[in-house]
Amino acid sequence: MDEDFRALEFTGGALRLIDQRLLPGKLECIDCTTAEEVAEAIRSMIVRGAPAIGGAAAYGVYLALLEAGDDRKRFGDLAATIRSSRPTAVNLMWAVDRMTKKAESTGFDPEALKAEADCIVEEDIRMNHALSEHGVKVLHSGDTILTHCNAGALATCGWGTALGVIKEAHRRGMGISVFADETRPLLQGARLTAWELVRSGIPTTLIPDSAAASLIRDGRIDAIITGADRITTDGDAANKLGTFTLSVVAKAYGVPFYIAAPTSTIDFGMKEGRDIPIEERSGDEVRMIGERLIAPKDVDVWNPAFDVTPHQNITAIITEKGLIHPPFDRNICAIKDR
Amino acid sequence: MDEDFRALEFTGGALRLIDQRLLPGKLECIDCTTAEEVAEAIRSMIVRGAPAIGGAAAYGVYLALLEAGDDRKRFGDLAATIRSSRPTAVNLMWAVDRMTKKAESTGFDPEALKAEADCIVEEDIRMNHALSEHGVKVLHSGDTILTHCNAGALATCGWGTALGVIKEAHRRGMGISVFADETRPLLQGARLTAWELVRSGIPTTLIPDSAAASLIRDGRIDAIITGADRITTDGDAANKLGTFTLSVVAKAYGVPFYIAAPTSTIDFGMKEGRDIPIEERSGDEVRMIGERLIAPKDVDVWNPAFDVTPHQNITAIITEKGLIHPPFDRNICAIKDR
Repeated sequence: MDEDFRALEFTGGALRLIDQRLLPGKLECIDCTTAEEVAEAIRSMIVRGAPAIGGAAAYGVYLALLEAGDDRKRFGDLAATIRSSRPTAVNLMWAVDRMTKKAESTGFDPEALKAEADCIVEEDIRMNHALSEHGVKVLHSGDTILTHCNAGALATCGWGTALGVIKEAHRRGMGISVFADETRPLLQGARLTAWELVRSGIPTTLIPDSAAASLIRDGRIDAIITGADRITTDGDAANKLGTFTLSVVAKAYGVPFYIAAPTSTIDFGMKEGRDIPIEERSGDEVRMIGERLIAPKDVDVWNPAFDVTPHQNITAIITEKGLIHPPFDRNICAIKDR
Repeated sequence: MDEDFRALEFTGGALRLIDQRLLPGKLECIDCTTAEEVAEAIRSMIVRGAPAIGGAAAYGVYLALLEAGDDRKRFGDLAATIRSSRPTAVNLMWAVDRMTKKAESTGFDPEALKAEADCIVEEDIRMNHALSEHGVKVLHSGDTILTHCNAGALATCGWGTALGVIKEAHRRGMGISVFADETRPLLQGARLTAWELVRSGIPTTLIPDSAAASLIRDGRIDAIITGADRITTDGDAANKLGTFTLSVVAKAYGVPFYIAAPTSTIDFGMKEGRDIPIEERSGDEVRMIGERLIAPKDVDVWNPAFDVTPHQNITAIITEKGLIHPPFDRNICAIKDR
């Protein structure tokens, strides 16, 4: 039941990425052969989604070592460039740190680094399947699920987190259906999630982000599941802009709201959501669609890529180690060593 | 301080409408010379916004009488076509009913009908100014106001409702600034509101709809003001999709939420918001932007044009007769004869 595409794959000496900016119109790949190319692919969102960024970054660090050879400073600089290519998703920092530690512990052995990156990717896919098996326990046959942005195979090294749970429920014949928020401004829901779900044969209805609230109020949504880019030890979760809004409406109308993410998304060094750095992206992402101007060209724009859902609005966090329920501050720390 | 453009204007025997689908790229008008052309302009949203639709419909009924001559059945059919061109905005039905009553009471006199349509337009502009003067009382110097969709000069016969209040505050030197939701799917906020506010010299920041919730939570919004397409006697208000979402977040974080609308928006024959017919528009409004496909072409779409904000989430309704506060059921009926 796994997908017939991979967001990222190391092949022929290069990191091959699906150029997600072109979907759903075109399924095309680009090859990155240098660390800077990987950093730029992350920045420009050729590859996006916290776990996929982590996987891409891991291969970026491997490419950095090939480029730097014995020049340790250059290796460090290149790794730092990748690490800072986007600020919010903690999996990026986690993957780069794991790779640089592995480099140090193996005497900067390229073979060992390549194996470590492969391992990160394989682990991610395995974690997503484990997470999905835990996640289906919160669903019931015939449920209608709302999701936001894309937390599918394209957002990870394979299978997906929030969409992984949905696909696992579908695989088990639970007869679930999905409403997918289009997710402005970059339309990951319309372009990527709808594409993945239609390919998977899961009944899917695309909606403008603003339509979700009426569905929630009218009892047409049984559960909301999204991914996350960083979770603090208090249980606050940064995810794509719009997730917080859904959580407020869900809480007001008593609909369960789940975050599905591997434990690599938890920042054990950060307690509160207010400390998560929120990336602000170019106003042109809002002013333009493609080459088309859809607003006055000189109007100011505020375009944060993420928002923070407070733990009070989260019913449970679905991880590869099981469900984390409130009180999150205690239960997140407890899962660290599980 | 009034605008140098009119959403609608009767000139040279035709109803001249700004083609709002082309803004902000092009400021172009089209002339409607038949009732059916007016109905089609309303359907296709060349003209939109409840009060502007009312004004356009009034001239449409006048054109219907010119076309029908002494054929009363044909006049009735043409008026009915206009009346049913969109289902949610009650000003449309209100204007058509007022025009047909005037036709009957004047022996179907074209001159009288033309004068009545002119009167509806002049009244609307006068009401918007009166409403704006009441509305500024809820604002304070330096306030930051959030608005959704377009309730400006383009949405009315002139000046505007929610934007009228904002422009009046600006005219008084109150130093206000505005966040404008882009308002998916048809982007009236990005295309029309941002265009109007930038022209008016009011400090304006455009945001994706989903960014509003973070601003509201973080105390960066002092008041939310939107228009309405229909208000029931209980005080429930239908307005552009996304308004309800804002009201839920505003209530959760204690930010005042105002509806600005003339009393012609009140449906005195309808008690509860659940009875308001909500127009569902083509899925292609979500799947495409211009000619560009932004989602799988075969994905199902749910695209309601409006949602209903329950009266419990509304701080006050700003009308030309003054502010209506809760309890709305009592105070809305009381304003009818004021």
